[in-house]
Amino acid sequence: MASSLSPPKVPMELHVANREKLLQSIHDHLSEASRPLQGFVFLQGGDEKTRYCTDHLELFRQESYFAYLFGVREPGFHGAIDVDTGKSILFAPRLPAEYAVWMGEIKPLSYFEKEYMVDLVFYTDEIAKTLHEHSSGRGRPLLFLLHGLNTDSNNYSKPAHFEGIERFETDLTTLHPILTECRVIKSELEVALIQFANDISSEAHVEVMRKTRGGMKEYQLESIFLHHTYMYGGCRHCSYTCICATGENSAVLHYGHAAAPNDRTLQDGDMALFDMGAEYHFYGSDITCSFPVNGKFTSDQSLIYDAVLSAHNAVISSMKPGVNWVDMHKLAEEKILESLMKGNILVGNVNDMMAERVGAVFMPHGLGHFLGIDTHDPGGFPKELKRLTEPGLKALRTTRELKEGMVITVEPGCYFIDALLTPAMEGSKTSKFFNHETIARFKGFGGVRIESDLHVTADGCKNMTKVPRETWEIEAVMAGEPWPLNKNTDRAS
Amino acid sequence: MASSLSPPKVPMELHVANREKLLQSIHDHLSEASRPLQGFVFLQGGDEKTRYCTDHLELFRQESYFAYLFGVREPGFHGAIDVDTGKSILFAPRLPAEYAVWMGEIKPLSYFEKEYMVDLVFYTDEIAKTLHEHSSGRGRPLLFLLHGLNTDSNNYSKPAHFEGIERFETDLTTLHPILTECRVIKSELEVALIQFANDISSEAHVEVMRKTRGGMKEYQLESIFLHHTYMYGGCRHCSYTCICATGENSAVLHYGHAAAPNDRTLQDGDMALFDMGAEYHFYGSDITCSFPVNGKFTSDQSLIYDAVLSAHNAVISSMKPGVNWVDMHKLAEEKILESLMKGNILVGNVNDMMAERVGAVFMPHGLGHFLGIDTHDPGGFPKELKRLTEPGLKALRTTRELKEGMVITVEPGCYFIDALLTPAMEGSKTSKFFNHETIARFKGFGGVRIESDLHVTADGCKNMTKVPRETWEIEAVMAGEPWPLNKNTDRAS
Repeated sequence: MASSLSPPKVPMELHVANREKLLQSIHDHLSEASRPLQGFVFLQGGDEKTRYCTDHLELFRQESYFAYLFGVREPGFHGAIDVDTGKSILFAPRLPAEYAVWMGEIKPLSYFEKEYMVDLVFYTDEIAKTLHEHSSGRGRPLLFLLHGLNTDSNNYSKPAHFEGIERFETDLTTLHPILTECRVIKSELEVALIQFANDISSEAHVEVMRKTRGGMKEYQLESIFLHHTYMYGGCRHCSYTCICATGENSAVLHYGHAAAPNDRTLQDGDMALFDMGAEYHFYGSDITCSFPVNGKFTSDQSLIYDAVLSAHNAVISSMKPGVNWVDMHKLAEEKILESLMKGNILVGNVNDMMAERVGAVFMPHGLGHFLGIDTHDPGGFPKELKRLTEPGLKALRTTRELKEGMVITVEPGCYFIDALLTPAMEGSKTSKFFNHETIARFKGFGGVRIESDLHVTADGCKNMTKVPRETWEIEAVMAGEPWPLNKNTDRAS
Repeated sequence: MASSLSPPKVPMELHVANREKLLQSIHDHLSEASRPLQGFVFLQGGDEKTRYCTDHLELFRQESYFAYLFGVREPGFHGAIDVDTGKSILFAPRLPAEYAVWMGEIKPLSYFEKEYMVDLVFYTDEIAKTLHEHSSGRGRPLLFLLHGLNTDSNNYSKPAHFEGIERFETDLTTLHPILTECRVIKSELEVALIQFANDISSEAHVEVMRKTRGGMKEYQLESIFLHHTYMYGGCRHCSYTCICATGENSAVLHYGHAAAPNDRTLQDGDMALFDMGAEYHFYGSDITCSFPVNGKFTSDQSLIYDAVLSAHNAVISSMKPGVNWVDMHKLAEEKILESLMKGNILVGNVNDMMAERVGAVFMPHGLGHFLGIDTHDPGGFPKELKRLTEPGLKALRTTRELKEGMVITVEPGCYFIDALLTPAMEGSKTSKFFNHETIARFKGFGGVRIESDLHVTADGCKNMTKVPRETWEIEAVMAGEPWPLNKNTDRAS
């Protein structure tokens, strides 16, 4: 059997619950501010786009906030929630008759009402009229539009627009922080989808490990992953472009894009770092496995791998509500630095190294990020929080305390990046920490990253990612053992 | 062996030749117009894009005209060709130091000079200065910018922009028609890439046929196709979103997009219509195979399939330089109408049907389109040609005469589309042609399309697509015979 999994039914109740949660949050906010409980939350869904000047249609993927509230898969929609009554209204594009010939059945409005479990559906050319008719207050109805900063991209979300919007009052500040905060804490239904994305992606990672051989191209492993998650998981989209890095490419944190397109040939003796995650009904996964291409760790490979694994495991053991994410990042750094000392790569005192931010030389990225409808799910920096400025810490996508219901990646890494190592090894304050001779051995090693998706529970956290993590587990699976390993398989086998 | 193919080396000489061809065409044009042979052809390559407000990077694919001239895979480039000297200049983005940590090696300018076989490479912040220094004429140097209509999308290409462009004269009208016409006639090197895209896609189609079973989901066949072309062909992009239509979906011409996402379950007795093509180093393929899901044609399925195949084969037999594409479209219609008459679906006289455009009821799309770096490659309607207005003919993406070196799809189809059949069967001038009783049998049948990619040669054309076409060939391959069939396999086997 090629897979033990099949795509689960998508419960549209998930989006009903998301809308109810937003409504409650808005009510709380408006009440506190002594503002009237009226107006409409109003969002614009994404539109299909053509490539440059051609008629090549890019495969449409819904805008994430819109997906969160309405779950709509089709382009060209708008959506509203009546703050007073809680009624949800979708606005569907009015399609021309020839759509039926070229694109498919023109579905009646009742189809969308039922499919997306909303109260009312109209056409997008009826937005102004409909909202006016359903408005309970006097005067120009108020629209809460989505406008705010994405702290990962530094881009602002584009507020909805429609013909006749000038006949409404608009509020551009209230909605974004409230809706973003709703997305930070996942419901059980949301967690179930992220779990499925994790399950199918975990299985695909194992498949990739088993098929990895010297002489293959990196992109062939990408292809195996994509095929497994689509064929058996129904995942048409990935959470992000696959990073299939081997050899020294594994030190390039965001390898795999068009200018570094997973096109190296795997060599015996390489480490592989594969960061790949499928998306199912908008909800994603984000998983990294690192392993030797030939299936057997060398002692140097084990040293770096176990340094990262000890950080990964220490963080997961410490995570629970109330724990600060910056502390978790520092814990990961400490564990890695300790291991590198044991391996004679670093010398001195870990506290001194931490003070000089030596950890950031080996792990320049943040420990992890929220995960949901976006791979870098928003909400990492509410207004009251600021990005840190120190090396390593400045890359953190959140500095918040953990809360029950968050889903966050734990992805420590240890890389040998010349652009960072050289200045640190030459720096007057940091040179002393480095064993220059040993480090020379790691020239071209690349790096190791171990990334799992964690669900924060009431008293700890649950690892949603199910891949071989111990070196002996990886070696067993690559040698053909089943995964999960049989109970009688142990380190001696 | 999973594939007999492997990705060929990409000859960058292809783009050198494309530039030389453009230069010659521009020289001819300017000389005829008694204009000076000076100025720069100046194009802007594509930029990487993020999804909505997030930092999710879409996988970059170069803009097609820029790809044609320079073959550059990376985003953020500009390119120039000195009309006087023929010198080619690339302008690469100046990347920040942290690019090396996150995205990969910062390649020196000399890398791009060698990789893309251009004469000079500078940074994009040096465009104005460089072009002024290399300008041979007096006064403000002239830039030939790309601005013109794409006749498939009705969008205009966006002319290049850079800081300091106001210090140049710009010509927005000369370049587009000349460069577009260059793209219409393919060089041997271009044809070789399109042939490879055809070879790997043909093989993938056969793989899909063999694995098709009732109970599967349409997208699983898409996944098999994508995997085969990426795994064995190195094709990361497809020419277009896969159309994997079964049952009545096969009458939806552009099925497969986000609102009709290949998610039906295959039923025994369905026809499948799979329109899928891989792209290799920008050059694409566009292939449709139609076959019964269960591997055996019913008599009704054979009737419609053979009607389309007779059109497909008649057109290919007639194609050669000088032949007009509208005539080929009409020939395909005639062949289909004749077959439908033989099958007792239509009654009357084919000439009368042609006069009433009955062919367009069954084949509402055009017979085919140019194929190259775009699936709908430009150049179908040079300024002097106009779109036709009659049903069916108005959908033609070109009305030109064939020329040696064109690559064009031949894709007749026959569909049972209620939205077209009902008015035609009720129309006072057309009702008489239809055998209403027989047609009722085809309710829900869907449709058949057979699409191959043809290279027009000096005295005919060459079919670049290598898939089973005869019903008995399809049945043999689906039953496990090798493809190509062994010589001793015949219709009796």
